[in-house]
Amino acid sequence: MTKPRLILDQDDVLAATHGKLAQIVLSDFGTNLTHEALHQGPLQQHLSPEDQKRLYKLIHAPGFFTDIPVMPNAYEAVLELSKKYDIFVATAAMEFPNSFRDKYDWLQTHFNFIPWSNIIFCGDKSILSGDYLIDDMPRNLKTFKGKGLLFNAPHNLEETAYERVRNWEDITKRLL
Amino acid sequence: MTKPRLILDQDDVLAATHGKLAQIVLSDFGTNLTHEALHQGPLQQHLSPEDQKRLYKLIHAPGFFTDIPVMPNAYEAVLELSKKYDIFVATAAMEFPNSFRDKYDWLQTHFNFIPWSNIIFCGDKSILSGDYLIDDMPRNLKTFKGKGLLFNAPHNLEETAYERVRNWEDITKRLL
Repeated sequence: MTKPRLILDQDDVLAATHGKLAQIVLSDFGTNLTHEALHQGPLQQHLSPEDQKRLYKLIHAPGFFTDIPVMPNAYEAVLELSKKYDIFVATAAMEFPNSFRDKYDWLQTHFNFIPWSNIIFCGDKSILSGDYLIDDMPRNLKTFKGKGLLFNAPHNLEETAYERVRNWEDITKRLL
Repeated sequence: MTKPRLILDQDDVLAATHGKLAQIVLSDFGTNLTHEALHQGPLQQHLSPEDQKRLYKLIHAPGFFTDIPVMPNAYEAVLELSKKYDIFVATAAMEFPNSFRDKYDWLQTHFNFIPWSNIIFCGDKSILSGDYLIDDMPRNLKTFKGKGLLFNAPHNLEETAYERVRNWEDITKRLL
């Protein structure tokens, strides 16, 4: 029997990208902001235009995506889900051409059971077809024809149009 | 009105990849094969296991995809098609992790009117949804839900299951 297809976003679903960015702001940007404040609302809204540019440069530099921590419990959960679902990873890497190899190597390092055939670097995710998509960006869920689950993130707290999952425990409860 | 989506393969549809490989065999591999012979059947079938390994190494090396010639009339045809179709490029780049940046830059150089949001690096193309797919690999057309067109190539000459297009003139006649 064919398994249902489950497509996972990489940043802020498998990888704690926001966490790395917030940590950089706290330790290097000489800010008065707290860790808590940086986890409420989009990161940009807390930053001056100058600091936004600084962060933009950092994200676009080679190497930025190499050492991002894995989201808590993501490895165990995806491994478990892979028994019942055909797992794909789809990331909007085209926005960051310096990230291609870093993002690929990161997946090989942390989710080595996902074959290269099931990795997608794209831009506009409306090109994807599958049964489930877990993503932190409402715009990606909007165009998805299957069932979309919104992974909780500081920049999507006010979104109400999609079923929300707060963490990987929520996801395994929902899908297993 | 939304334009229909036309997904194009990169190698052997936009880029004359087989042509570059055949040229390398003819000029560097000390072979008795002719240009004509190398355009009949899969390239591997003409090569010794040793030469197959040599070619495999070349394809997987950084830089291989940077200087591939554009397929005859592809630029003009895709530009014309882009007025009626939403053009995406989907290439099985995941098989060649050293090719990511080369393939991206090649598209920026030769098809700069295709936005980064419409480029997809993938493996298994059954993840794609669209109205048309033009590809030289029957396996990619087999799983496609829209209309597939097989782009003529030495390695697919015996395939009869799909509508065949011989070149970019054929494609514009068929789709415009």
